[in-house]
Amino acid sequence: MKQHQENLRKLGLKIPPIPPKGGAYVPAIQVGNLVFCSGQGAYRDGKQAYLGRVGNEVSLEQAQEAACIAGLNCLAEICSITGNIDNIKRIVQIRGFVNCTNNFHDHPKVIDALSSLFLDIFGENGKHVRCALGTSNLPGNIPVEVEMIVEAENLDN
Amino acid sequence: MKQHQENLRKLGLKIPPIPPKGGAYVPAIQVGNLVFCSGQGAYRDGKQAYLGRVGNEVSLEQAQEAACIAGLNCLAEICSITGNIDNIKRIVQIRGFVNCTNNFHDHPKVIDALSSLFLDIFGENGKHVRCALGTSNLPGNIPVEVEMIVEAENLDN
Amino acid sequence: MKQHQENLRKLGLKIPPIPPKGGAYVPAIQVGNLVFCSGQGAYRDGKQAYLGRVGNEVSLEQAQEAACIAGLNCLAEICSITGNIDNIKRIVQIRGFVNCTNNFHDHPKVIDALSSLFLDIFGENGKHVRCALGTSNLPGNIPVEVEMIVEAENLDN
Repeated sequence: MKQHQENLRKLGLKIPPIPPKGGAYVPAIQVGNLVFCSGQGAYRDGKQAYLGRVGNEVSLEQAQEAACIAGLNCLAEICSITGNIDNIKRIVQIRGFVNCTNNFHDHPKVIDALSSLFLDIFGENGKHVRCALGTSNLPGNIPVEVEMIVEAENLDN
Repeated sequence: MKQHQENLRKLGLKIPPIPPKGGAYVPAIQVGNLVFCSGQGAYRDGKQAYLGRVGNEVSLEQAQEAACIAGLNCLAEICSITGNIDNIKRIVQIRGFVNCTNNFHDHPKVIDALSSLFLDIFGENGKHVRCALGTSNLPGNIPVEVEMIVEAENLDN
Repeated sequence: MKQHQENLRKLGLKIPPIPPKGGAYVPAIQVGNLVFCSGQGAYRDGKQAYLGRVGNEVSLEQAQEAACIAGLNCLAEICSITGNIDNIKRIVQIRGFVNCTNNFHDHPKVIDALSSLFLDIFGENGKHVRCALGTSNLPGNIPVEVEMIVEAENLDN
């Protein structure tokens, strides 16, 4: 029996509702035991938690929080397939894009906040491969966008 | 029997030839039931349909058209494995990169044109996860680059 | 019996040690027969081989070398799962991000150096799909970041 949900509760966190969609896509798709999700930003409580570029309007600490919120939003999408996070067998891959100024180079520190959170929630099952990337631009001027692949279990088909 | 090809015909569209390769890669690769394709721009009739950044030389409407052309080019690559689009069981994932000015933030509107087109062609089988991203730069100064994963059926192995 | 290791030796190359990690992620993850790796730059002999943007501090030729070093670092990560490169059945996908100036558009030439190297090492098994992308920014100001998916064989589970 997985303890992911219990770990999340102990951290004072919960899986948020899936953010409103920005187009004609679906939150998540199951292929075999893998679940792919759509890219997410730090939408929370009805709006983006932060807007702007990291290194300018958005600080490193705010970007780290944005990465964690985005990751939880990805989990919300994935739970549309798995039902709950205890059915996530393993985090496989995180890809994080950081919208930042030309002289900001600490992208790994931004995405690492999410990597660490996932280890706290999923323990050994939270170990993942990762790609941290910078960009000059993200949808709606959000500071961080995250996408993920997980391995799931107890799926219907 | 899938109606994808028939839907494409009704839309007045067809799968284009695979664009000339820009290097030592292949158009598509099959892994189990999944087919991955190489990234594509809006190459059409022997040249790129548009060049430049969205928000500058390229308008939103032109970028939307570029996204659709790029997506059809991806389908052309995928058909090198599947033979035709009726053997595409499902669109799994679209990742779209938009080469744009620093103050352009409507990336989802650009890529959504392709998402909607795929729903028109593939119906329920066109539902996919998506990642829309911005960048300051794409190969050859193309405005949009798209890559995809699909699930296929009736494959030889 | 695969000749990948022998081909690598003939090229005067070898698989480097896995570069130091920049966060709470793992080098590679196996899902079925696929192995995903984390994004890598051109770390070599204890430091990044090059720093800066292509088109500015970094030349096309240096960026091509950086892409090859990054690709070998990805292979090092993958070998943490497969043991050696002869257990790599096939390169599936390369995604290469080039940190460049606004007017640099030869991203495919940068990543093609790695594509060609993989054909030299893996022969027919080196054929892959590819995505070459530009960005204004990469972690630590590295010029090139590469991530990959391979198909492996002779794995324990």
